[in-house]
Amino acid sequence: MPRPSSFADAIVLLSGGLDSATVLAIARARGHRCHALSVDYGQRHRAELDAARDLARAVGAASHVVVPMDLRGIGGSALTDPGIDVPETPGSGIPVTYVPARNTVLLALALGAAEVRGAADIFIGANAVDYSGYPDCRPEFIDAFRSLARLATKAGVEGAEIRIHTPLIQLSKADIIRRGTELGVDFARTVSCYQADAQGRACGCCDSCRLRAEGFRSAGLPDPTRYV
Amino acid sequence: MPRPSSFADAIVLLSGGLDSATVLAIARARGHRCHALSVDYGQRHRAELDAARDLARAVGAASHVVVPMDLRGIGGSALTDPGIDVPETPGSGIPVTYVPARNTVLLALALGAAEVRGAADIFIGANAVDYSGYPDCRPEFIDAFRSLARLATKAGVEGAEIRIHTPLIQLSKADIIRRGTELGVDFARTVSCYQADAQGRACGCCDSCRLRAEGFRSAGLPDPTRYV
Repeated sequence: MPRPSSFADAIVLLSGGLDSATVLAIARARGHRCHALSVDYGQRHRAELDAARDLARAVGAASHVVVPMDLRGIGGSALTDPGIDVPETPGSGIPVTYVPARNTVLLALALGAAEVRGAADIFIGANAVDYSGYPDCRPEFIDAFRSLARLATKAGVEGAEIRIHTPLIQLSKADIIRRGTELGVDFARTVSCYQADAQGRACGCCDSCRLRAEGFRSAGLPDPTRYV
Repeated sequence: MPRPSSFADAIVLLSGGLDSATVLAIARARGHRCHALSVDYGQRHRAELDAARDLARAVGAASHVVVPMDLRGIGGSALTDPGIDVPETPGSGIPVTYVPARNTVLLALALGAAEVRGAADIFIGANAVDYSGYPDCRPEFIDAFRSLARLATKAGVEGAEIRIHTPLIQLSKADIIRRGTELGVDFARTVSCYQADAQGRACGCCDSCRLRAEGFRSAGLPDPTRYV
């Protein structure tokens, strides 16, 4: 893949978690002028959004937009529906913390933002290794979205391409942590926990906490996560 | 295409305009239990949402959800950005009233709602004839979204299919008006105008008003639109 020209605008989906913080640092390191995009989708772990704002500044995003989008009317996920508990023991199959069609919605918004900005590059921290069984983290899903993007946009109609970058897709959590550390990401600022408290402190019990803690152990790096 | 079984759940994207009202009536006539889905995306013509609520009841939707999603931070469209005027003379190419990636976002939300409801059918009023140059109204865009839907969802992972229906895609505005009239849609309840007033009365000047008025003329049917 050709290296994008310096200062080319890019849209970076930024949740405030460990993965997307690393993706933002990667996009910056590739010379992009980064426009961070977060979605306030009524998630329980609202400290994530505070972390996203903090990270956008710390990693040097040129701008940061939070799009309010209330998915609670649709429901169906422990992350947005107060009637479903976040599980503290790993289950099999697709977990209840799956937000229906989340990456499709996120990429659609990023596509809109890319059109408005005239950006040709979108970065998302999708990961198919530690992906907890979410269907929209798989490479074949991303490829289908690439095909869609070519047909969905003014740029596509006019013959340009909007590139969807997934630099983490084949990395283990430990690899992601190593890569982010090399790039100077301060992981203490990131929030991964599905039920973090208002200060962004992690429960240490949910699937996301387990994966993260195990990642630091495997990487042989100290875990800076703030636990309750 | 096989006729869906009676009372099968369907998600119907309902803007409150003439097209989506007709689509809801078509989905009902095919025997679906319809869950109407509207998006409050900060559009100027907010009377559309009131019309959507009214139509959901009048046409007999089983439920209606309005998802708040504020796209004004992304901007880029005369429909959501107060800094861009709605044009009153037709231009060439893609108009400024194009909302970036709108149908991608709408279909993504519908896909999420379909997953939560266990619905196998999604209806959208996309139209490639009077489409005003919007790239995401074309059949090839819809086909790309169908491919995406197979890969994006639990249902797809488990081998089921979510069908995307576009019953209006090849119809002229006059055809849509005739079809809706046959099905008893009260078009006086629908709002198409890009700058309707708070009572849903149309300006009569914008592209959308022109297309609609011309549709009633071509269909040889009285135009029940309420103008300012």
